Amino acid sequence: MKLTEIGEFGLIGRIRSDLENFQKGAIIGIGDDTAAIEISSEDLLLFTTDTLVEDVHFKWNYTSPFQVGQKALAVNVSDIAAVGGRPTYCLISLGFPQDTEASLVDDLYKGLKEAASLYKVGIIGGDLVRSPVFIITVSLLGRVKKKRIIFRSGAKKADLICVTGKLGGAAAGLACLKRTDLKLNQSAREFLIKRHLMPSPRLVEAQEIARKNMATAMIDLSDGLVSDLTRLTEESGVGAILWEDKLPVASSTRDLARELGKSPLEWALYGGEDYELLFTVSQDKKEKIEKNLDFSFALIGEIVDKREGIYLMDKTGTRTRTEGRGYNHFLK
Amino acid sequence: MKLTEIGEFGLIGRIRSDLENFQKGAIIGIGDDTAAIEISSEDLLLFTTDTLVEDVHFKWNYTSPFQVGQKALAVNVSDIAAVGGRPTYCLISLGFPQDTEASLVDDLYKGLKEAASLYKVGIIGGDLVRSPVFIITVSLLGRVKKKRIIFRSGAKKADLICVTGKLGGAAAGLACLKRTDLKLNQSAREFLIKRHLMPSPRLVEAQEIARKNMATAMIDLSDGLVSDLTRLTEESGVGAILWEDKLPVASSTRDLARELGKSPLEWALYGGEDYELLFTVSQDKKEKIEKNLDFSFALIGEIVDKREGIYLMDKTGTRTRTEGRGYNHFLK
Repeated sequence: MKLTEIGEFGLIGRIRSDLENFQKGAIIGIGDDTAAIEISSEDLLLFTTDTLVEDVHFKWNYTSPFQVGQKALAVNVSDIAAVGGRPTYCLISLGFPQDTEASLVDDLYKGLKEAASLYKVGIIGGDLVRSPVFIITVSLLGRVKKKRIIFRSGAKKADLICVTGKLGGAAAGLACLKRTDLKLNQSAREFLIKRHLMPSPRLVEAQEIARKNMATAMIDLSDGLVSDLTRLTEESGVGAILWEDKLPVASSTRDLARELGKSPLEWALYGGEDYELLFTVSQDKKEKIEKNLDFSFALIGEIVDKREGIYLMDKTGTRTRTEGRGYNHFLK
Repeated sequence: MKLTEIGEFGLIGRIRSDLENFQKGAIIGIGDDTAAIEISSEDLLLFTTDTLVEDVHFKWNYTSPFQVGQKALAVNVSDIAAVGGRPTYCLISLGFPQDTEASLVDDLYKGLKEAASLYKVGIIGGDLVRSPVFIITVSLLGRVKKKRIIFRSGAKKADLICVTGKLGGAAAGLACLKRTDLKLNQSAREFLIKRHLMPSPRLVEAQEIARKNMATAMIDLSDGLVSDLTRLTEESGVGAILWEDKLPVASSTRDLARELGKSPLEWALYGGEDYELLFTVSQDKKEKIEKNLDFSFALIGEIVDKREGIYLMDKTGTRTRTEGRGYNHFLK
């Protein structure tokens, strides 16, 4: 059977089911944003990796080496942030064709260092190999207090669903990059492209949520709202309702959607790479989070019984079942 | 400037010199087998990564997915062993073409699990991405007591140079794989091919060396004796003399060299991927290591002054300068 037939999640399930014996001592193992290992009576070591491949995750004709370096580290930082942790040290594995210019690697490292400075990450080693296409794998360590870690699996029925920032901007940015003939104004265009090329993981916000013990579950939005919400609800054994009119979408995203005749809702629900935080909060903390969290977020839905699945509800109360889409590496 | 012009070591130097500020808190940083980070007053956390790329590091026409999985983890274990550590947990990042058979990934994981069982490594996560060629990156954590870690940089003038196992077997195995018309007997052929395809890192031996505090410096042989000895001597600020007639070469390696009209010495000095341990021992411990180490090893040379560089001496006392060869990803 081809991997295209079983899909990415099918393959993760297949690998995971067979590897239970190999995960002894791990608090979180395969299938989560990051693995977590007990390292002292109070602390957990976090360990995550993400790979970017030329022409799959980025294209050189509209991405600079600096941006690839920045993004490669940022997406890993987002995985550490997603459990409430702070990143510490990373290794960089680079594969590139033989005729690569040395200046490309220099520029890529400038991007890595910019992100490393910003997120206080040490770059302490790696590997350099020849490869027919450019590939970068970042492996990142992090730390979190045991009592602060936020799992995907903690969402309870009636919890509120919250999200930081705006949705669909990265997908809109990608659409911008593919078209040069758009009438969109320059600042809107730049805003959207930056959302796609230079993600800003919500590290500060995630740490605040963890420190203030506000969330029952959390995940970062890498594959798309519905896709990542599905992971969170599956791990928690619950369902979810999303309130269509509460989904936060930036005006530039709406403007671009209008120009392209696309639905901004599509991007908000199924567009990947926003790297915002999706978190759930128990109803009785509603006032507390509105008063105590030092950043803005939107209440976009509610956790419901598992049997209800995931659906979207508009202002009139009409329910629509969400589709099982989102980024899947083997179907695209 | 192309990377081919500055070479792998040139690039490592370039990356390393510019990253000193990004390595705070690391006991060993960029350029070594593994990074090491202080994790408690007594212990160090080890962190290493290695990537294998289809058609660069292996070819599917003579390597099974099982073997690729086994080797991908084994070469990382060798890096942890090289400092006297024990491996603990790993992440697996896989990139593969869209039309890959699911059974290939299953078989690859069988190889990974075989190695994970053997070396007591937990497989706790990773990443799955689409890629035009097959690529596997293993990121491996390990532990070592601070007082036990063995650096590359500790070799002193007059120390003895020791090596485990036999040299040049992996290079001979690769030569076997490229020719199907050899007269070599079947068991010799299988032995050599296994040396190339299924390396056995010297984890037990390395831990014994560390526990018994026998070595002043250590490195694993991944790129070739001369290449890895050069790294060790550079880090230690010394030179080295190798005794030609003491270099341990298996009889099957000699047999194959004879048949192919090649020099077994060439393979022993410059052939990569033997994954043996090269370690240095102070002269006054000579008897002690011969009596106390529970595995066989060969005394193959002596550390000399830095000004002398690295050379080979035959039985008659004739000296030959070694060449700066060994595996270099951008020149091959």
